[in-house]
Amino acid sequence: MTGDTARMSRLPDGRDPSVQPAVRLRPATRTASVPSSAIRDLLRVAQRPGLILMSGGLPAPSSFPVDALRDAFAAVLDADGPAALQYSMTEGEPGLRSWVAAHEAARGTPTSADEVLITASSQQALDLVGKAFVEPGEPLLVESPTYLGAIQAFSVYGPEFRAIPTDPDGLDPEALTASTAQNARLMYLMPNFQNPTGRTLSAPRREALSRVLRRLDLWAVEDDPYGDLWYDEPPPPSLRTLAAERTIRICSFSKVLAPGLRLGYVVGPRPAIDLLARLKQATDLHTSTLAQRAVLHLLESGFLDQHLPRVRDIYARQCAAILGALEASMPSTVRWSRPAGGMFVWVELPERMDAGRLLVRALERNVAFVPGNAFYASSPRSNTLRLAFATVPPDKLRVGVATLADLVRSGPQD
Amino acid sequence: MTGDTARMSRLPDGRDPSVQPAVRLRPATRTASVPSSAIRDLLRVAQRPGLILMSGGLPAPSSFPVDALRDAFAAVLDADGPAALQYSMTEGEPGLRSWVAAHEAARGTPTSADEVLITASSQQALDLVGKAFVEPGEPLLVESPTYLGAIQAFSVYGPEFRAIPTDPDGLDPEALTASTAQNARLMYLMPNFQNPTGRTLSAPRREALSRVLRRLDLWAVEDDPYGDLWYDEPPPPSLRTLAAERTIRICSFSKVLAPGLRLGYVVGPRPAIDLLARLKQATDLHTSTLAQRAVLHLLESGFLDQHLPRVRDIYARQCAAILGALEASMPSTVRWSRPAGGMFVWVELPERMDAGRLLVRALERNVAFVPGNAFYASSPRSNTLRLAFATVPPDKLRVGVATLADLVRSGPQD
Repeated sequence: MTGDTARMSRLPDGRDPSVQPAVRLRPATRTASVPSSAIRDLLRVAQRPGLILMSGGLPAPSSFPVDALRDAFAAVLDADGPAALQYSMTEGEPGLRSWVAAHEAARGTPTSADEVLITASSQQALDLVGKAFVEPGEPLLVESPTYLGAIQAFSVYGPEFRAIPTDPDGLDPEALTASTAQNARLMYLMPNFQNPTGRTLSAPRREALSRVLRRLDLWAVEDDPYGDLWYDEPPPPSLRTLAAERTIRICSFSKVLAPGLRLGYVVGPRPAIDLLARLKQATDLHTSTLAQRAVLHLLESGFLDQHLPRVRDIYARQCAAILGALEASMPSTVRWSRPAGGMFVWVELPERMDAGRLLVRALERNVAFVPGNAFYASSPRSNTLRLAFATVPPDKLRVGVATLADLVRSGPQD
Repeated sequence: MTGDTARMSRLPDGRDPSVQPAVRLRPATRTASVPSSAIRDLLRVAQRPGLILMSGGLPAPSSFPVDALRDAFAAVLDADGPAALQYSMTEGEPGLRSWVAAHEAARGTPTSADEVLITASSQQALDLVGKAFVEPGEPLLVESPTYLGAIQAFSVYGPEFRAIPTDPDGLDPEALTASTAQNARLMYLMPNFQNPTGRTLSAPRREALSRVLRRLDLWAVEDDPYGDLWYDEPPPPSLRTLAAERTIRICSFSKVLAPGLRLGYVVGPRPAIDLLARLKQATDLHTSTLAQRAVLHLLESGFLDQHLPRVRDIYARQCAAILGALEASMPSTVRWSRPAGGMFVWVELPERMDAGRLLVRALERNVAFVPGNAFYASSPRSNTLRLAFATVPPDKLRVGVATLADLVRSGPQD
């Protein structure tokens, strides 16, 4: 009987189906250029309790409008459930596209609904931009440092990154010369409360940059996930208000509502939107009908008018707490950015210090951050690091920063 | 004053900001290979009333569990709203991955949660597979005809499609020879109630195919969005049950729950899942936390046990209605498939007839379908067409099919 059973559990060709021989995986060449997944590893760590996590770029969960969203999902399903659960158009729900167009117009650029593409997060928008415009081996202009997620999204498409220097006023337009931009089609930047530096591109530099973009015939990809998270006053008008004809603007509902919805959008000239939509169709057909309708329901009620001041207040207080902690405990050899909005502070250690090695020592004392290297497309500066302050209670921020200050004072130890 | 106003409305460099000069768009070369967007255009048409739409691949909205989903979203937001709205892991919510693993195990293949990747629809899974495995200029094996959305997703990555013949029993494994498969890494197929033909790969052919895949060292991409929509009996065991070590299996909640959720998954060997997850991170970070948790809430209640029989009954009755209509009105020169599940019937017109020209005449009489050409990666057969029957009431199906029969009888008219 045992013999029979054994025979019966085998496949006709004699193999035991419970044993899976490993088969050689042959990934496409492009996969080799995707950098190792620092964000992903961080999201993993975020599942572990106990650490003072100044690493992940998570928004403050206390800012998520749980009750309003529960009501919005219910209202949309009650009003027309079958339509809210059916396939929808690739470009997005017409009502949401119109809302975005009106929102952009109110910010200073006349915009029609067909200049809007709804995406499943601004990360997807970056992937679509890479798919649409990045040619393997051709230069792609980025800030130095720049957003890690953008490096990852674009790397799949094989660009040669060219990093443009930045300073506390953001990207330096004068560094964007004809020779630097040679053969480039695109400049990617995050002008408001940049991830990772927290810096904002000044108004005069936005003007200057728009002129340089025209002179060099470059398109701008203006990534603006944090623009609404200002503390005292709004950031200068967007690059799109100055050069709409060559700007692809990417926004997100992740920070003003919640990231778990996976909802963002792109605004730009119609031919660019049409191309991106054609690629989005091949990528995922369209973004969740239900999520789009629920968020539209919320937006149409004027919810943001009451909600955003509350969100800004949360981030402003968190930022004040970490800046206070840095001021109180860091030695004078350490410098850091003073963000006017958003959720990140950029720290420069003394030149000789390596933030990667600092992280190893910090983790032993239950403190996490992201070494700056990950944010450089080229020529990383190893003495930099990013602190994310949105989700850590102020007393923990003080402990975390004081721990880092201790470690900096005790100097490099290899 | 008019002059002042005019001057003031101009930018410093003298341009009128309301006039957007068109700027040359320079798309990446890969965008040229994405075929024109037939599905997208169909989704557009679907917004126009009046037509008898046997064109779009929309599932039956009467099958969508509106009330159960409303309750599930509310329950998940009530239980832990901030977590349901926060960023999550790229691979998917742990609970949902475990549910999928148990579901696959119950279908005959031992599966662990880390062999599962949750995606924003099975279309996204196709995009990720293309990103991960399709090398520009290398052969990619597909059925003839095959799913249009797969052609679109893969085309971005530049394969040379090689079409393998099919017949009423599905793909012919004997046609998959060493010379046909030379230099290929992947075979893409939809074995159950295929889109567009409605055909199912027979059990003996699945066995034969699994042996051929091993002999030729090919991976299979088993796309199975419709497998649960059987009428009288389940389809044969999946290809994954026969060749798990080299099968990447793609499934979707779009037909068993609702497409507007944008939720699907991939099951496969751990190295393949890890690679796809690394690319998914670069593509959209992760799939909606909220949608995953709401669907998991529903699944854990055993909801599918009561829901699926109802869904199957809807599709079985719709299919019986269109098959009856074809039997009643089509001339004997026309042949069609007899699906055992799913939502499509494949029609072969007399050799001399062109389905594209038939569509033009059909639209004049308010009837829409998809000409078969769109579903061929190469060597299209112009006398074929696809009828989608899920969303059209039976009396309209009879009218639509009778109209097509009239047009076929009246012969080609150019």
